[in-house]
Amino acid sequence: MLVNGKPGNLISIRDRGLLYGDGVFRTLRATQGKAQHWLLHYNKLLHDCTALDIVCPDVGLLTAELNNLLALHPTGAMKLIVTRGEGTRGYAPLGCVGTTHLWDISPLPEYPADWALRGIKAQLCRLRLSHQPRLAGIKHLNRLENVLAAAESSDADIAEGLLMDADSNIIEGTRSNLFLVSRGQLITPDLSHCGVAGVQRDRVMTWAAQHGMPLQVRDVGLDDVMDADELFVVNSIISMWSIREFNQRCWSEFPITAKIRQYLDGSDA
Amino acid sequence: MLVNGKPGNLISIRDRGLLYGDGVFRTLRATQGKAQHWLLHYNKLLHDCTALDIVCPDVGLLTAELNNLLALHPTGAMKLIVTRGEGTRGYAPLGCVGTTHLWDISPLPEYPADWALRGIKAQLCRLRLSHQPRLAGIKHLNRLENVLAAAESSDADIAEGLLMDADSNIIEGTRSNLFLVSRGQLITPDLSHCGVAGVQRDRVMTWAAQHGMPLQVRDVGLDDVMDADELFVVNSIISMWSIREFNQRCWSEFPITAKIRQYLDGSDA
Repeated sequence: MLVNGKPGNLISIRDRGLLYGDGVFRTLRATQGKAQHWLLHYNKLLHDCTALDIVCPDVGLLTAELNNLLALHPTGAMKLIVTRGEGTRGYAPLGCVGTTHLWDISPLPEYPADWALRGIKAQLCRLRLSHQPRLAGIKHLNRLENVLAAAESSDADIAEGLLMDADSNIIEGTRSNLFLVSRGQLITPDLSHCGVAGVQRDRVMTWAAQHGMPLQVRDVGLDDVMDADELFVVNSIISMWSIREFNQRCWSEFPITAKIRQYLDGSDA
Repeated sequence: MLVNGKPGNLISIRDRGLLYGDGVFRTLRATQGKAQHWLLHYNKLLHDCTALDIVCPDVGLLTAELNNLLALHPTGAMKLIVTRGEGTRGYAPLGCVGTTHLWDISPLPEYPADWALRGIKAQLCRLRLSHQPRLAGIKHLNRLENVLAAAESSDADIAEGLLMDADSNIIEGTRSNLFLVSRGQLITPDLSHCGVAGVQRDRVMTWAAQHGMPLQVRDVGLDDVMDADELFVVNSIISMWSIREFNQRCWSEFPITAKIRQYLDGSDA
C-alpha cells in the first residue's frame, strides 16, 4: 500500500475522503505484472477529478508508483483513491493544500468458475438509485447506495443485483455495468442521472463501434431486460459475466456476448 | 483526537468510512467543559447507526471518552464519527469485525457577530438534493452534495445556501435546518426524501410543543419561504441564525425567532 507515494496504510482522520466521501477511485485488475487498461482508468480518474474540481495527480507520477507496486505484487485487485485532502473545517472545499492519493492491493477475488463459463444468477435490488446529475457517472466515494444494495442478498448463489432508479429504469449492477443484446442491437442504460460509467463499459462500446454493431444508450425498462436475447454485466475485476437467470427467466445462448468477451479478454484489446 | 478510544489522528485506508462513506457522524458544541445536548446527539447517532445496520458504540463508552476530551479541551467543535470499520473487499458489509469510532476537536468557528445579532444573507443553491428515502434524515458520511453546494459561493457575505430538491421543494441549508414562521405557525421542511434531521431541529420542535405553537412538517416551496414572516436556520455549532436577506427580499423583525433563540441558548434547555 502507498499513501501519497510512500509505503503506509493510514490516512488522517481529517481527510475529506473520510469526512465527506470527497474523492474518487478506480479498481484495476493486475495480472503478470501488468495493470489492465491503466491509461483508460487514468483518463476516467482525470475526468472524475475534474468534475469535482479535484486536482488529479499527474499520470507520470501515478504510473511510476503503479509500476513500483506491480514489481512487488504482479497480481491482484488494485484500488487507487484520490481525495481532496485536508482543508479547513466544513463542507466548503477551502484551505486544501494538496490532494491525497493512495494505492491498495488485494488478492483477486475467487468466484465460482461457473459464473464466467455459464453465466450468473442476478436479482433485482429493492433499493432505488437516486437521481443526481451532478454526480452521475462519476466513481466517487459516496457509495452508501451500493452498500445498501449489496447488503440486500445473503444468497451466495446470487452473483449480482441489478438496480433501478426511482423512475423504474434499470441502471446498472451493484458493482457492474449492464448490457442487453436485443434484435441485433447492443443496449446499455443511460447514466446521465445516476450510475457509474466504468472502463469496461467504454470498452464494450468501443467494440461495438469497431464491429459495426448498433449501440443504443437509452432508458432501459424491466420489460427491455426481460425481452433481451442476451444480458451481461462487466467490470474491471470480473471482466464479463453473462446473466443466465434473472427475475424468473433463464437465458442459455450468448453468441454476441461470446464475441465481445473475446475482445474484452484478448491480449490485443 | 481519539481513534477507537486511543490518542491518534489516523485510520486505515481500508476503513469503509473512507472507501464508501459507510458511516455516520455528529458535530457538537463544547463550551466550559460541557458538550451541549450530548444525549440528544447520542440518540441521533444510535438512530442513524441502526438505520445503516452499524453497531453503535455504547453510550457509556462514548460518554467516558467525551468527558476525558472535555477535561483537556473544554471548548470547541467536537466531531464524532462512527464507521462500519474494515471488512472484506467489496460493497457488501461482510467480514466487519468491529466499528471504528473517533473524536476530533477543532476551535469553534468565528463568525461575524452581526450574523447572530441581525441575521444572515442566504442564497439559493443551484445544486438540487437527490431523493433517497433510505438515507434521508441520516447524518451519514456521503456528503458530496453538501460539498458541491457549499462550493457554489465564494462570497464571504453569504452565510448559508438553501437547497431545493428536484421537485423544487426547499429542504434545508447546506449545513443547517430551516424553519419558517408564517401566520403564527412554525413550518419546517419534510425530510423523508432527503436532508439531514439535526438535533437543533428537534429542539425547535420541542419548543413548539412545549409552548403550544402549531408546527407543520411539510413540503415547503419557494413561495412559502418568500411569504414567511420570519426565517431562521439552526445547527449545533451556530445554534440559530435569522435570515435577513434571501432571494431579493429582506426581513428585519424576528419576534418568534427571538423567543426560540432564548430557549435554544438557555442554560436550562
